[in-house]
Amino acid sequence: MTTSQETGMIDEGRIAADIEAIAAFSESPPEVGYSRPTFSEPWRRARDYVIAQAEKAGAEHRIDSAGNVHIRHASLGWTRRVWLSGSHIDSVPSGGKYDGVMGVVVPLEIIRCRPDLPLELVIFAEEEGTTFELGLLGSRAWAGVIGSDLLGSLKNRFGQSYLEAGRQAGVDPSRLSRDGVVPTGPHPDDEAPFRLDPSRYAGLVEVHAEQGLSLWDSRTPIAAVRRINGRRQYDLTIAGQANHAGSTGMEGRRDALAGAAELVVSLEALGKRLDRELPYTVLTVGSLEVSPNAVNVIPGMVRLSIDFRAQEEELLERGEREIRHLAEETASKRRLEATTKRSERIEPSPLDEGICRSLQDSAKALGVEIPIVPSGALHDAAVLSPLIPTAMIFVASRDGVSHNPEEYSRSEDIALAARTLAGTIASFPGGIGAQK
Amino acid sequence: MTTSQETGMIDEGRIAADIEAIAAFSESPPEVGYSRPTFSEPWRRARDYVIAQAEKAGAEHRIDSAGNVHIRHASLGWTRRVWLSGSHIDSVPSGGKYDGVMGVVVPLEIIRCRPDLPLELVIFAEEEGTTFELGLLGSRAWAGVIGSDLLGSLKNRFGQSYLEAGRQAGVDPSRLSRDGVVPTGPHPDDEAPFRLDPSRYAGLVEVHAEQGLSLWDSRTPIAAVRRINGRRQYDLTIAGQANHAGSTGMEGRRDALAGAAELVVSLEALGKRLDRELPYTVLTVGSLEVSPNAVNVIPGMVRLSIDFRAQEEELLERGEREIRHLAEETASKRRLEATTKRSERIEPSPLDEGICRSLQDSAKALGVEIPIVPSGALHDAAVLSPLIPTAMIFVASRDGVSHNPEEYSRSEDIALAARTLAGTIASFPGGIGAQK
Repeated sequence: MTTSQETGMIDEGRIAADIEAIAAFSESPPEVGYSRPTFSEPWRRARDYVIAQAEKAGAEHRIDSAGNVHIRHASLGWTRRVWLSGSHIDSVPSGGKYDGVMGVVVPLEIIRCRPDLPLELVIFAEEEGTTFELGLLGSRAWAGVIGSDLLGSLKNRFGQSYLEAGRQAGVDPSRLSRDGVVPTGPHPDDEAPFRLDPSRYAGLVEVHAEQGLSLWDSRTPIAAVRRINGRRQYDLTIAGQANHAGSTGMEGRRDALAGAAELVVSLEALGKRLDRELPYTVLTVGSLEVSPNAVNVIPGMVRLSIDFRAQEEELLERGEREIRHLAEETASKRRLEATTKRSERIEPSPLDEGICRSLQDSAKALGVEIPIVPSGALHDAAVLSPLIPTAMIFVASRDGVSHNPEEYSRSEDIALAARTLAGTIASFPGGIGAQK
Repeated sequence: MTTSQETGMIDEGRIAADIEAIAAFSESPPEVGYSRPTFSEPWRRARDYVIAQAEKAGAEHRIDSAGNVHIRHASLGWTRRVWLSGSHIDSVPSGGKYDGVMGVVVPLEIIRCRPDLPLELVIFAEEEGTTFELGLLGSRAWAGVIGSDLLGSLKNRFGQSYLEAGRQAGVDPSRLSRDGVVPTGPHPDDEAPFRLDPSRYAGLVEVHAEQGLSLWDSRTPIAAVRRINGRRQYDLTIAGQANHAGSTGMEGRRDALAGAAELVVSLEALGKRLDRELPYTVLTVGSLEVSPNAVNVIPGMVRLSIDFRAQEEELLERGEREIRHLAEETASKRRLEATTKRSERIEPSPLDEGICRSLQDSAKALGVEIPIVPSGALHDAAVLSPLIPTAMIFVASRDGVSHNPEEYSRSEDIALAARTLAGTIASFPGGIGAQK
């Protein structure tokens, strides 16, 4: 192994090859997109690929009690205070090649080129939330903000809980907190990062595709991220009465889908209005299921999801009241019944200003001026940010497309992110300080 | 067996017991409704139950090349000209106990009580269209208006075609017409009704739940049906762009579900307007599927069904133009792509006036005045009506509810339908004449 101090050795060809190799592990063929549900066979094979690549470069790995993989160069040991960098390899159904994956292959490439840098690569499990219907599970469980009770109740499409499905991948309920309290005091096992011990980390930088238009449109390769939108999610059911589509007159109907459709249109208008009040606010109905879903039956029941994100908690609070009001109003005027259940609430996360400035300086030393931007999307970094000094690097996404097989980022931009991150770690091996 | 001429022997308790017995053959538990997909195990067991009951009463059965069951009392033979009465035992998912089933158990009860009457019971396969995504298949194939080419292309949820899935139930492609031409000339097998030979039938009377409010609300037990709505169905796809729900701004989206929702609301308004122009017009979006259908992904594609029915072909023609226009207009203003494909077209069917009058006379002899009404729902009777003198008897549905486990009709009303039908057959054993 080389121990060269040259960050210039970061190789964009090797990064691109890693991304292609991981893309090959998918439940679906490339033309319909990349599908890697958490704990699935393709997910495990992608994880094994990263571990094997890191081991070839002299690194070792540990799996924590929530099923996240941690990788350090063997020369560092597991007790030394290091920087953390990583992301996820699970994908939405029919997703793209870059979302999450680039944030894993960047620290992998740094470990290859700069084994001397104090860096731990992490692969968080179930970031997307499309396998177990709730996201950021691996990072939240490791951080102790959720516990085994919740993980035992969330089911995948096969009816297996996170704990059951993850057993083969290293999930260990006996070492998870039960109560969702951040563990304190001495670490249960000094050799393995079963749970997060914040004192062991100088900081976290997650590299991720922007998944929006702003960098690509302004021809900016990368940016530092200073704030992450909060997110609330809702599970809504609208109940009417299933009836015969031929013999039930238009006026006597209690059509759950017609009511849901009216609500979807109103929610879109609400999202647009709130976005005009506070930029980066978004509101999406991403899933909708009809029962009995037959061509000749008036729908009796609709279940739909709402995903609502904004930079300020106050706006999320106010928006929630409006969502609940719209659902009730739409239902009652059509003699339907609406039930709105909040399934997720994550507050907006301010990130670390010092790390952002250092990333700007590091990029400047490479000849690139980078802006500081907010993140509309939520990331594992948001979970860790209250516990460890945290920032992110965004890489431009072509046309802002993500969660789609057309997703694309330039290899040279990803390599620039790697060089920028390596520069920051090299300049502040012990961390920048706790200014937030 | 008795050969009493007393129609009073029709036993409503026995009719109710038949309905309960058939309800027990279901893929789903009663609390979520009765589910009997065509050719499924519960469907075959329900069919076997009817055959066994009929055989106990001295009847014989034949299965035609489309998988429909024909039952006659053994004393009649298969060549004698008889009346035809029957319906279907397949159900929509989570349907009710009465839809179709009452139209089978009524002639079964008449065969039990009046084996002397010239009557053939028929159980048509796949009336609902929720197993193979197109309805009235058994009756249309027997009548020769569709052929084995179409039946070989329609698939159930297991990917089996009607021909494949129906083989065990007696479907015989070698005896089906291939080209959709009504077969003429000598019958291929004089002993079995492989295909419809109209000269062998005096008339058809299908007994069916009204599935609407008009009889129940006016406290009318049964009615004769003089006209059946035509039906058109459409398969619509709306394509946008899947993208990340957090990082894609509200204004840059091409959200297929938001577009579909707007269209569903417009289609409902169109249906209401056309219903005010011509009573009994209905328009329904019964099924809708979202892709990728994930909480955090903007929907990239929606597929939905439209079911559109009216009493006049001219209105169906005009409505179709409006449906296509609405789909294109909604899609284009949102930068989406809409594709509208007509999957079904059945013209409105006038039924036989003479039979309707005879049913009124027969009911009057039992002390009941019955009205003549139109049918919003489509039935196998509509398929046979151009070929055989055809009418229907509607039985009141509680609160008009159908395609729903709450569906209910009174046993005494069903028994009245049986007595009325038996009276008509007894009065005109050779048929009423071809006045239509």
